[in-house]
Amino acid sequence: MAAQRRTRPDATRRSESSRRAILAAAFELVGEVGYHRLSIEGIAARAGVGKQTIYRWWPSKGAVLFDAFLMLSEGGGKGTGGGLPDTGDIEADLKSVLRATVGETEDPLFEGPLRALSIEIAGDPALAAVYAERLGEPLREMKRERLRSAQRAGQLPAGLDLDIAIDLIWSPVFQRWLYRTEPLTREYTDRVVEAVLHGLGATGIGHPRA
Amino acid sequence: MAAQRRTRPDATRRSESSRRAILAAAFELVGEVGYHRLSIEGIAARAGVGKQTIYRWWPSKGAVLFDAFLMLSEGGGKGTGGGLPDTGDIEADLKSVLRATVGETEDPLFEGPLRALSIEIAGDPALAAVYAERLGEPLREMKRERLRSAQRAGQLPAGLDLDIAIDLIWSPVFQRWLYRTEPLTREYTDRVVEAVLHGLGATGIGHPRA
Repeated sequence: MAAQRRTRPDATRRSESSRRAILAAAFELVGEVGYHRLSIEGIAARAGVGKQTIYRWWPSKGAVLFDAFLMLSEGGGKGTGGGLPDTGDIEADLKSVLRATVGETEDPLFEGPLRALSIEIAGDPALAAVYAERLGEPLREMKRERLRSAQRAGQLPAGLDLDIAIDLIWSPVFQRWLYRTEPLTREYTDRVVEAVLHGLGATGIGHPRA
Repeated sequence: MAAQRRTRPDATRRSESSRRAILAAAFELVGEVGYHRLSIEGIAARAGVGKQTIYRWWPSKGAVLFDAFLMLSEGGGKGTGGGLPDTGDIEADLKSVLRATVGETEDPLFEGPLRALSIEIAGDPALAAVYAERLGEPLREMKRERLRSAQRAGQLPAGLDLDIAIDLIWSPVFQRWLYRTEPLTREYTDRVVEAVLHGLGATGIGHPRA
């Protein structure tokens, strides 16, 4: 089997180039026409490939689109090998990641498609399931891995519920962005990280079950 | 001026009854037809009142609808005088409020309209502004007031940023509900409250600026 899949180097390069063109086309188009009018035909035309090339790699337009976001979003497209930054300082690294997220929301070319997709996911349970599999869970695993590294470094307790921690760190940023209640600033995200890591300073009301 | 506004008790009762019928009609209809097809005409017909009766009290369908949510949501419609519960125990009270929110999301008659509206707000900055004025800010002020009471009771530090605290407590619940990533349970919301109040137990990485 492995032998049959082996290709000459120039063919591999062409495949990778097509794949990137398809992902970029899907990302551009969803910002222009919205998710409902996005089609495999449209993506193929924009990318300059045949429909069959797309169907060879992806089962649906949603799958293409989430791979496009994964390529472009935190870690995935920045040559970091798909992980969050790890300088050994969890607080500094989380601040840096959330500041980068603020930067993404300030870029209309990223913000528009992200908003269109977020709205679709909220109204469509089937799409939400594809999202979770293709994008949500891979991103969440990156976040868990960074928190595990902080546990190994003794900066977070071993018994920490990583999924609760992730929700606390990322949800306020998501909601402020989605609802536009107040400007999403780097000062805000810094303070969220501090408040989550250190708590609100509650006193005299017992301690969590750890 | 006050004398001109005075009405006989039966007229006041009729007004209050019409007001409640209008709010209930708006709430039912948005769940049935969605926000785009919701109209003042439709609300008037369902409530059995004239359009002018609605326009006398509200400037737009969005304003009616947010008042309907305010009447039905946390505190506003439960005879508590519009406040969050205050037993003197901030942790228990926050858990109780978030458990009630989980209950609301389990009721299709509430969940459907709330989801329809949340999606509309995310895609429509003008509606988001009406939401913020009519519903978002009144609810947020209820939350701030409960946290201030905890500050007075010595359970939260005086210098706490109340808006950051509110975001940390409520955003994870909102995002888990909106994206349906995992079931929204009372066990989850209890643990969110504990983690927010006490922090993740981060150690050796300095302390927040308080």
